Amino acid sequence: MTRAASQTFVALTGGVGGAKLALGLANLLGERLTVVVNTGDDFEHLGLYISPDVDTALYTLAGVVNPLTGWGRRDETWTFMQALQELGGPTWFKLGDSDLATHVDRTRRLRSGATPTSTCTHLAARLGVAARVLPMSDRPVRTVVDTEEGTLAFQKYFVREQCRPVAKAIRFDGASAAKPTPQVIEALSAPGLAGVIVCPSNPWLSIDPILAIPGMREAVRASGVPVVAVSPIIAGKAVKGPTVKIMRELGLTTDNRAIADHYAGLIDGIVIDGSDADAVGGLPLPVTVTNTLMRTLDDKIALARDCLAFCSRLSARTPAPERRR
Amino acid sequence: MTRAASQTFVALTGGVGGAKLALGLANLLGERLTVVVNTGDDFEHLGLYISPDVDTALYTLAGVVNPLTGWGRRDETWTFMQALQELGGPTWFKLGDSDLATHVDRTRRLRSGATPTSTCTHLAARLGVAARVLPMSDRPVRTVVDTEEGTLAFQKYFVREQCRPVAKAIRFDGASAAKPTPQVIEALSAPGLAGVIVCPSNPWLSIDPILAIPGMREAVRASGVPVVAVSPIIAGKAVKGPTVKIMRELGLTTDNRAIADHYAGLIDGIVIDGSDADAVGGLPLPVTVTNTLMRTLDDKIALARDCLAFCSRLSARTPAPERRR
Repeated sequence: MTRAASQTFVALTGGVGGAKLALGLANLLGERLTVVVNTGDDFEHLGLYISPDVDTALYTLAGVVNPLTGWGRRDETWTFMQALQELGGPTWFKLGDSDLATHVDRTRRLRSGATPTSTCTHLAARLGVAARVLPMSDRPVRTVVDTEEGTLAFQKYFVREQCRPVAKAIRFDGASAAKPTPQVIEALSAPGLAGVIVCPSNPWLSIDPILAIPGMREAVRASGVPVVAVSPIIAGKAVKGPTVKIMRELGLTTDNRAIADHYAGLIDGIVIDGSDADAVGGLPLPVTVTNTLMRTLDDKIALARDCLAFCSRLSARTPAPERRR
Repeated sequence: MTRAASQTFVALTGGVGGAKLALGLANLLGERLTVVVNTGDDFEHLGLYISPDVDTALYTLAGVVNPLTGWGRRDETWTFMQALQELGGPTWFKLGDSDLATHVDRTRRLRSGATPTSTCTHLAARLGVAARVLPMSDRPVRTVVDTEEGTLAFQKYFVREQCRPVAKAIRFDGASAAKPTPQVIEALSAPGLAGVIVCPSNPWLSIDPILAIPGMREAVRASGVPVVAVSPIIAGKAVKGPTVKIMRELGLTTDNRAIADHYAGLIDGIVIDGSDADAVGGLPLPVTVTNTLMRTLDDKIALARDCLAFCSRLSARTPAPERRR
């Protein structure tokens, strides 16, 4: 086995945007990839335990995600939702019929005492996902957004209110009592680990909940391997979602420098889009410039390959013993 | 308002067979009909509270029942079930996508503190059911079947095992601690009440759980109105389900006499099918002979009309003051 063939990588990700890069990485790495997924978006709805980012990661890696939305399942039917509406039930959170099976199965497993991690591992196996998909923690962390219209649980802010209220602060309830799972720690301390990739998810809403878990940031740093982030900002805009809106509301400039500053102390390098190439000089750390807009599977794989190469380059530059923190 | 137009009726019913007559009655009576439904079949499955006979009654009266099976909803899709199977979930109890909305909505309402009765009333209103549909009790009663292969919860006996194991006894766990709801008592003591109809459901599996509730049998008798049962037996056979099999296993003859004996002390008359007309002489109470096989809506309405006429005939025969028990 060559050295490269035994190298493992960890990706930190939120939902749709991050999962796209995870898919690219999974295509290159297969089971050598561990994806640590934000669970701050998790919530209970209709008596079901719903873990949106984990499901988006699973569906994306399994090739069953809805290609139009990036979440939910392809070839979905909506009979349940239509019947629920007839019965006067809440319909602001869309649950497709096949997607519902995931929530029902997860909920019954958790109620039977299974952990989120073992439940996710089961789902991944059934869906045929080769990469290891891990919830960031088995303990509940709930992202809440303090807005000018009051405090909103994440899904109410994100889905019901469509991110319309002005954000003042973002908190992660339960994070201080949470901890990374043994499986996450194991992945971050694996002997073959060659890099950690922070996917281009919303840093404030999707990656920060992961990093808010006591011990997580330390475990990433203690890995001693290059940590690179792919910026979710392209030419001052986010590909999807409220990243730029939130950055403005939090008083930040909406550029890659703000992303780099946000991850300062965690990352060793940042990947930015070619359209921002002229800003490289203003960035206080190593940069890879490439195409970060992932329209096709080839785009995803190409960006993943750039991330792996960046890790390799950073690793070669800094001898391993020195980099151990 | 004529006397007939203000008369109300109560029907006791289980699932498919009984619901057919309930539909006939509802066509004649509309909101003057109260249907008291067996909840001994209720169970929790996949974290959902499922009330099969109540749903069959609701779907049938709403005109949305699957006409091929008599249970579940028409124009159903099965995407959920297919996805659940892919995930390795239990699939022995079939849950259609629109049917699932009923279970999810009921479950969340019950978890929020609603009663089965108020939940059923809500569902009936949303489905456009004019008749009043009432669970027999708001307290849990669970039908269990002692078989030669051990004790089985009802749905495991009925659906998973397809009634194959030999029944030795049928019990109603929780019945002794249950009681009829105020709404059931109100319907049975309404001033306009003109009759109680025991639908042709399985007497042992579907009607007995209703009658096992302390105070239910007494409330039916205290109503002072004619009580008539439609026999589920036609020419020694049941139209559907394990009635005859169970009668044999319990050591009973499989005829209308056994049905009449079973309901002795409760009913004032029995409705039997024309194919059993020669057995009328052997029956120890007033009999109406008609077509009890309900293939079409017209069959259901005709049988319902016969039941109402039978009540009227019995009422005329026995002056009300004497009949008050």
